Amino acid sequence: RIDPARLTARLDALAAIGAIDGGGCCRLALTDEDRAGRDRVVEWMRELGLFVQIDAIGNIFGMRAGRTDAAPVMTGSHIDTVRTGGRYDGNYGVLAGLEVVRVLNEAEILTRRPLCVAVFTNEEGARYTPDMMGSLVHAGGLSLAEALAARGIDGTVLGEELARIGYVGDMAVGTIRPHAYVELHIEQGPVLDLEGVTLGAVDSLQGISWQELTIAGQSNHAGTTPLRLRHDAGLAAAAITVFLRELARKMGGNQLATVGKLDLVPNIINVIAQRATMTVDLRNTDEAQLLEAERRLAAFTADLAQAEGVTITARRLARLEPVVFDAGIADRIERVAGRLGHSIRRMTSGAGHDAQMMARLCPSAMIFTPSVGGLSHNVKEFTHAADLQAGADVLLHTLLELAEG
Amino acid sequence: RIDPARLTARLDALAAIGAIDGGGCCRLALTDEDRAGRDRVVEWMRELGLFVQIDAIGNIFGMRAGRTDAAPVMTGSHIDTVRTGGRYDGNYGVLAGLEVVRVLNEAEILTRRPLCVAVFTNEEGARYTPDMMGSLVHAGGLSLAEALAARGIDGTVLGEELARIGYVGDMAVGTIRPHAYVELHIEQGPVLDLEGVTLGAVDSLQGISWQELTIAGQSNHAGTTPLRLRHDAGLAAAAITVFLRELARKMGGNQLATVGKLDLVPNIINVIAQRATMTVDLRNTDEAQLLEAERRLAAFTADLAQAEGVTITARRLARLEPVVFDAGIADRIERVAGRLGHSIRRMTSGAGHDAQMMARLCPSAMIFTPSVGGLSHNVKEFTHAADLQAGADVLLHTLLELAEG
Ligand SMILES: NC(=O)NCCC(=O)O
Ligand SMILES: NC(=O)NCCC(=O)O
Repeated sequence: RIDPARLTARLDALAAIGAIDGGGCCRLALTDEDRAGRDRVVEWMRELGLFVQIDAIGNIFGMRAGRTDAAPVMTGSHIDTVRTGGRYDGNYGVLAGLEVVRVLNEAEILTRRPLCVAVFTNEEGARYTPDMMGSLVHAGGLSLAEALAARGIDGTVLGEELARIGYVGDMAVGTIRPHAYVELHIEQGPVLDLEGVTLGAVDSLQGISWQELTIAGQSNHAGTTPLRLRHDAGLAAAAITVFLRELARKMGGNQLATVGKLDLVPNIINVIAQRATMTVDLRNTDEAQLLEAERRLAAFTADLAQAEGVTITARRLARLEPVVFDAGIADRIERVAGRLGHSIRRMTSGAGHDAQMMARLCPSAMIFTPSVGGLSHNVKEFTHAADLQAGADVLLHTLLELAEG
Repeated sequence: RIDPARLTARLDALAAIGAIDGGGCCRLALTDEDRAGRDRVVEWMRELGLFVQIDAIGNIFGMRAGRTDAAPVMTGSHIDTVRTGGRYDGNYGVLAGLEVVRVLNEAEILTRRPLCVAVFTNEEGARYTPDMMGSLVHAGGLSLAEALAARGIDGTVLGEELARIGYVGDMAVGTIRPHAYVELHIEQGPVLDLEGVTLGAVDSLQGISWQELTIAGQSNHAGTTPLRLRHDAGLAAAAITVFLRELARKMGGNQLATVGKLDLVPNIINVIAQRATMTVDLRNTDEAQLLEAERRLAAFTADLAQAEGVTITARRLARLEPVVFDAGIADRIERVAGRLGHSIRRMTSGAGHDAQMMARLCPSAMIFTPSVGGLSHNVKEFTHAADLQAGADVLLHTLLELAEG
């Protein structure tokens, strides 16, 4: 059994690094705060007797030896956050992994397979795209060179920042090939909280389409330029934003669309914007529907460009098809939860997770705990200590079973 | 007659200060670039024998003595620019004023009334609002204390920046009360260029309503938050932007609406925006129509706030009623232009100008020259040298007539 007080103490200690008003965290990937968080987690891994290895993209692996050298069972997540992040997203999965190790150490249990706790680089994609980058590189879905060359929203280059914080490891990427991967994470959505169910056995994850649209118009005077002579990049960005909400509404419950980032140039009250740069985040559990949403967006922007006399160019930032997890592991998670007396339901994941990349390498699935009010990527993100414990207990026993297999 | 080569040389020299790519200028009010521009103009004024006085808001007045001490005839404009400004907006009016003085000096003409060339502080409103601030304070429409306390888009305080660049003058604001004010300016709109007319005799100026809207929503995860649970500040800002364009279109040719500035927080691809701050620039030649546009915007934002579950608060940045200039001076400008053989038409001004503030103190009007392609607040802003000369010639002879009156 996991000790909830010890888990909470670790969550608090990590949340103090990059703490922001309201109880949240700002620990963008490969910043000084990320470095400080990594240093703390590595220190904890060493205290627990884990053998720490770091790979060339900065993924951290803490290995606990087994009775044999068979392929390890892996758990883990990430510790980077968005700019207005909470303290559970990612951190919970990593720190619960450490608590699992502590419980096994104290009970002097040696599993047949080694156990590995992973911390993946840049899962959020908030500073560098694509998201889930460390696990994607690990799984061979993105080359190391491309990942290192990624340019951040602040103009920095990922490889340079990784070197600066001292996390370019010696291990080649993709070295560790696990037998199975189980990730514990807060739901980050409203389902479990609304239904009053304690846990989710996650058996699928929706597809993600990220694009950056750049709209080039013409700056001109707000007081003298008739509507028909305007080429307003800001107006075009607004029209796309409104269109996307409407599109998602019309396509129904499984289609989501979000414009989270928008920058105007010159961004002055009495100047029509000459340039707008915006992001588009489209998600759907169904690949055909996701393709349809992308197609309709492209048709809309083509018409709009003509009507407003602007040019609109799209750059792909990330594109991930929906993933189906391993049903056997999801079944196992359900059984373990039932045995421990926790309510659980099968569900899909709205957010992207490192598990979706690991699923390319080995049987994988996830365990979700409720997010109060469905809030995440918000400083008010919150999960009750009892739910944190329930999730960690199910993780512990699921890993134990898999490590004997 | 004005020497166009000398006028152009001055325009080039001033445009070199704060020069940006494409031939434009970035000389935001009270920055180091503005200081350098002011220093240059003051130096030129002294070379021409003008008596230079600076008031407490940093307005610069260069006085040329007359045969009597009667109230002076004033011309002038501003030398601050927007971030992506051109080289004519404002600068032309100031430098043409200096060329008028040079012609009179060389011809050894002493007018009955003194002549005064004014450079008003922060006309653009691009860094500090309201716009036309220096002339508004001069005319008594805004207290000196309020103006000095204005906070800039970069967080600076106007009074501190004015002191920093050394332009807090000894003269009390509003000291100089002119007999008449004539401002020469590029049109900044398409009318003269489209119609092939050389000059405009400006007899009115449309009303300006500037507001800042702050939208408070809730940040949440783009992948997990169903549409109905979103409180998306970015979507609300987009809906307002699209509404305003539609409103202006429906209200007809005289209503303009522009959203030039928009900032999202946290501005991250996979986070629903928790806050949006946007500006709204509404203009109309008719005060009743302008009030109607403001009213409809307020009604729309109230409904939208309810529908999206966000709060929307408005802060007024500037509000100026339409102005009717002195018909006598506009008639005189037309007559002078006719005598000099230039085509001219009566017109209204879409942009705000210092003349609209001076009109509170004395009979005032403006002379416009064509803007090629109607471009302004754009680095490509351009007016042909022959038109620059025509405008300056008409200014010279209009000022000469007024200074004898
Ligand atoms: N879990 C999580 O927030 N991942 C970031 C990628 C995404 O936007 O889904
Ligand atoms: N002339 C000019 O651009 N003035 C700035 C104020 C406005 O936006 O009209």
